[in-house]
Amino acid sequence: MSAWLLPESVADVLPSEARRIEELRRSLLDRFRVYGYELVMPPMLEYTESLLGNADASLNLQTFKLLDQASGRMLGLRADTTPQVARIDAHILNRKGVTRLCYCGPVLHTQSLGLHTTREPLQCGAELYGCGGIEADLEILNLAVDTLNLSGLKGYRLALSHAGLLAAVVDGEGLSDALIRSLHDSLAQKDRPAVEDLLAGVSASCRLSVLALLGLYGAAGGANCVLARAADILPRNPKVAAVLSELRTLIARLQETVSANLVLILDLADLASFDYHSGLIFSAYVEGCPNAILRGGRYDDVGAVYGRARPATGFSVDLRELVSLQKVHSKPKTAIRAPWVYDTELMAVIRDLRSQGEVVLQSLPNTAQEEEEFVCDRQLVQANAVWKVVPIGMNQEK
Amino acid sequence: MSAWLLPESVADVLPSEARRIEELRRSLLDRFRVYGYELVMPPMLEYTESLLGNADASLNLQTFKLLDQASGRMLGLRADTTPQVARIDAHILNRKGVTRLCYCGPVLHTQSLGLHTTREPLQCGAELYGCGGIEADLEILNLAVDTLNLSGLKGYRLALSHAGLLAAVVDGEGLSDALIRSLHDSLAQKDRPAVEDLLAGVSASCRLSVLALLGLYGAAGGANCVLARAADILPRNPKVAAVLSELRTLIARLQETVSANLVLILDLADLASFDYHSGLIFSAYVEGCPNAILRGGRYDDVGAVYGRARPATGFSVDLRELVSLQKVHSKPKTAIRAPWVYDTELMAVIRDLRSQGEVVLQSLPNTAQEEEEFVCDRQLVQANAVWKVVPIGMNQEK
Repeated sequence: MSAWLLPESVADVLPSEARRIEELRRSLLDRFRVYGYELVMPPMLEYTESLLGNADASLNLQTFKLLDQASGRMLGLRADTTPQVARIDAHILNRKGVTRLCYCGPVLHTQSLGLHTTREPLQCGAELYGCGGIEADLEILNLAVDTLNLSGLKGYRLALSHAGLLAAVVDGEGLSDALIRSLHDSLAQKDRPAVEDLLAGVSASCRLSVLALLGLYGAAGGANCVLARAADILPRNPKVAAVLSELRTLIARLQETVSANLVLILDLADLASFDYHSGLIFSAYVEGCPNAILRGGRYDDVGAVYGRARPATGFSVDLRELVSLQKVHSKPKTAIRAPWVYDTELMAVIRDLRSQGEVVLQSLPNTAQEEEEFVCDRQLVQANAVWKVVPIGMNQEK
Repeated sequence: MSAWLLPESVADVLPSEARRIEELRRSLLDRFRVYGYELVMPPMLEYTESLLGNADASLNLQTFKLLDQASGRMLGLRADTTPQVARIDAHILNRKGVTRLCYCGPVLHTQSLGLHTTREPLQCGAELYGCGGIEADLEILNLAVDTLNLSGLKGYRLALSHAGLLAAVVDGEGLSDALIRSLHDSLAQKDRPAVEDLLAGVSASCRLSVLALLGLYGAAGGANCVLARAADILPRNPKVAAVLSELRTLIARLQETVSANLVLILDLADLASFDYHSGLIFSAYVEGCPNAILRGGRYDDVGAVYGRARPATGFSVDLRELVSLQKVHSKPKTAIRAPWVYDTELMAVIRDLRSQGEVVLQSLPNTAQEEEEFVCDRQLVQANAVWKVVPIGMNQEK
């Protein structure tokens, strides 16, 4: 076995990509900050009881487990930062009012979620606690759109849905939680035969309504839009009406406050995780990438397991994935080459240039230079006992 | 068991501390960059064979192991980033010339190294490959001093030593590698009885020379300085002379190029890891902290296990520790409070203020605000149909 072999779906991030990730990291955290989101850094390791308090089976399977030598108990490596931030809101900060938090750090997965998907995403996200109103959803959606724009992605689509829709559609039919849970999963996978199988025992009208969800996909606005069709096809009960009305308001406000050019899709069969989400769900897609590049939504009461249930909404992205999808790559600044001589004047000049943000590369003796990141287009030369910066190629004055 | 309990020596980083860590992270990576250091991000997980290729027993014990479900093989969670960066230099980049790399990310330890020491340091460091000359050591020392200054630490001491000194002192005495290794450890721990035990079988002159190392500690300059005493006491063989001469030159150059005010200590019994370091070793200390807050030195040939041996020198710090030692805390900027009303004018004003870097907190309906990080000293109010920023306390115009 070669000592340099890395595990499957695990990779080094090399200089120019690392720089672009760092640039995006900073611009996202700065943006979160001007919205009033406070940065937190939960640990990589927690006891599995706390890390997986809210977890569904798939998050549990995605979580590496290891033994804590200090306690003899089982630890988990975080596979998702969201529950940790909910724990901080619920138990550590425990504030009465609205709390806005953001984070950025690696998470680890036992298995790759796709052919080209890393097992070590760099998860970055924002969470808003303590407000159950549509205003909180709108603020988070604004921030999500800002995130996509700052990532330099063009032509993305934002897909909306609502975790409460299925329960509203089957309201009064007496379906078991287990059946609703299975329907959630099969609908999310657009698996029509599975949905039909699951619905074998229910009334014909209910079966038709649930199957109709699979077709309720498309542009959020315009003639014959998804919401209009949904109002026609789905049962006319107050719960369905409330969900559709919430989505209608949200779409109108989004187009007003974000941008009329935003490409909004409705995908009413995408109901996300039954155990987790509780209201609006959203995700973003770009051409050439089958998976969602941003996921978010409302998950009220996520903090209950940590001692306090309250409204919560948020989203997250993988910075490594966003950077890999960038079509236009930012270039590093050019650099200045400097010789290595013991000269306090030269040292002072170099220190000064660096404090102005210039990259100054000193040529070490008996070595060649070879950088990926820094193209030297200027050099420090001594002329009449003064060190100055001249374009490379210009000879030193006599 | 409470779901919010964290493992021993593992902690959340909360808002104001997280902000200060992020600020320091940025200023350090920016400083590394203007010296020409390219950022890399090695993975958290590697096969133990590659992660521990160069590791001594203590790094191995500090490394969490877990099973890779994808390969059935053993993975390690990095406890130190240095070997990973050496692997990237040796195998992935494989450049002919000088390569300057830097990194910043969490590492995990199975056990806390001290009573108040985290098991999840945020390790940040810089490495220079391909130059065996003193110039490379000086550049790295310059960067290390910049790191301490940017961290806002006052009154730190920089301690120097040389990994080759013990071997030079016992040159020609025929001591086994195993004995030299044990001597290294006992000298580093200043364990005089253990050193005496180990030296039971060697010549009296050699014993005296090795024990003398324990007393060779103190200021690097001035009358009766450590190097002068060392030249007097230690054997006068060419290897000892070469080590002392290297240290003498380095100290002179450091005081010339960095600062005459730098507090330089020599600690010739601190010989660091026998298996790892090969030349200059340095560490930094501040009042009130028993452990070194910065460690570095030369470790030539670290890349051999990855297929290419070449000169290497570097250092690293734990950003969480540096921030915890700061006496003066930077304050966040003040913020602007804005009401939540559906008003495209207001939205535009808020967007504009945020793009100028102002923090604007929108008051969500039916909620209180309570932030640790943002003190609102201004608010957005509407006067004559125009939204403007006024100091908090000023009433809206009629």
